[in-house]
Amino acid sequence: MSVRYLTAKLAQQIDEELMSAAGAFSIDQLMELAGLACAQTLATAYGKDKHSRVLVCCGPGNQGGDGLVAARHLKMFGYQPTIYMPKPGSKDIYKRLKQQCDNMKIHTIPPEESNDALPKALKTSDVILDAIFGFSFKGPIRPPFDVALKSISDSKLPIVSVDIPSGWDVEKGNIEGVGLEPSVLLSLTAPKEGVRSFTGRHFLGGRFVPQSLEEKFELNLPPYPGFDQIVELPSAQRL
Amino acid sequence: MSVRYLTAKLAQQIDEELMSAAGAFSIDQLMELAGLACAQTLATAYGKDKHSRVLVCCGPGNQGGDGLVAARHLKMFGYQPTIYMPKPGSKDIYKRLKQQCDNMKIHTIPPEESNDALPKALKTSDVILDAIFGFSFKGPIRPPFDVALKSISDSKLPIVSVDIPSGWDVEKGNIEGVGLEPSVLLSLTAPKEGVRSFTGRHFLGGRFVPQSLEEKFELNLPPYPGFDQIVELPSAQRL
Repeated sequence: MSVRYLTAKLAQQIDEELMSAAGAFSIDQLMELAGLACAQTLATAYGKDKHSRVLVCCGPGNQGGDGLVAARHLKMFGYQPTIYMPKPGSKDIYKRLKQQCDNMKIHTIPPEESNDALPKALKTSDVILDAIFGFSFKGPIRPPFDVALKSISDSKLPIVSVDIPSGWDVEKGNIEGVGLEPSVLLSLTAPKEGVRSFTGRHFLGGRFVPQSLEEKFELNLPPYPGFDQIVELPSAQRL
Repeated sequence: MSVRYLTAKLAQQIDEELMSAAGAFSIDQLMELAGLACAQTLATAYGKDKHSRVLVCCGPGNQGGDGLVAARHLKMFGYQPTIYMPKPGSKDIYKRLKQQCDNMKIHTIPPEESNDALPKALKTSDVILDAIFGFSFKGPIRPPFDVALKSISDSKLPIVSVDIPSGWDVEKGNIEGVGLEPSVLLSLTAPKEGVRSFTGRHFLGGRFVPQSLEEKFELNLPPYPGFDQIVELPSAQRL
């Protein structure tokens, strides 16, 4: 039995169930573990010796929050993250996560300078963490992200995407051809339908799904090794 | 420069600073990372092949919350945790963490049966995670924990203690002689004065302290390896 690929609706449903009164998880907890998994994935694929300068690209939603958590952990791991976040989220948790990054002396490109500063930031980066759009993304891609995705693609830098590469349809993949083409993907909880065709290194994170929930949604998650927060999906999953 | 040992007051101050408006951390975040570090420490010291049955002993305060988080992660790692928690904490987060453990089908000894059930639970356990009292502990040890500590000690099971072995004075150590004698200790953020004489395996967790805070309090924390959440203190620290 291979791992289940989720529709956008199902991914949403699992998220809601985890954070319901019955599921009892707070968004702070889930985001902390998701962001830690993002940081560990990047550190596994791109060592800090040659890829210390990470441009962490954050969208305005929960995925952007994962990115901020990841930036903080990457800094702890000895990387030099910079945050590109042209549309900061308005939720309280987003502000707190940003403050935590400020306290760690992680540089954030000021939102009002984002457009001009992005090309320069790309030139001084070694790898991208793509936390722009998540499983609730619906096109079209609005400014400034339309221009941003193009700049990021043009940079030819290696990209680690979270959950769904930004610009891809969550269920149909990169059908518009404007999405990022990551070398590494971290799927959270379970992969989404749109990444079935993904051929790069594919990791799974979100080691917090109770067995009862896994069974209810027939996720068929692979076992995680040791006490890692991520597991690499076997190459069979990529064929 | 070796790592700084903290007074109870200083430990409290650092905790408050992390969770202040300026520090911006929520208790959910810090507890999640602390509990994950507890689970990783236990898994590092006691493999699940021979020590799968973990009795997670939780006090009514924040340390008990760390224990509940650890129990959940241990279950995820493939251990079989059981929770002993005779005085459940009243805070909302404590209830949510307990619910998460229930959802993972982790057995909790019903509080009203705790006294009678503890000796039996000890007989069917391989190792203890001691999350009863933390750095805010002040004696004397009140019932039912007085009897519980004696039962746990008498069991001769290996013990992994969190922050300060239960029953020890936070600054003076096991001066009353009634505290637990763990084989493994996980200090959170920085070790406390009371554990200077500890000679077992000593780990440090809490990889979330910003450098500015570390410098302000002159913590002299050792570097953590790779992307681990814990670091073992060198034997020099134990002499």
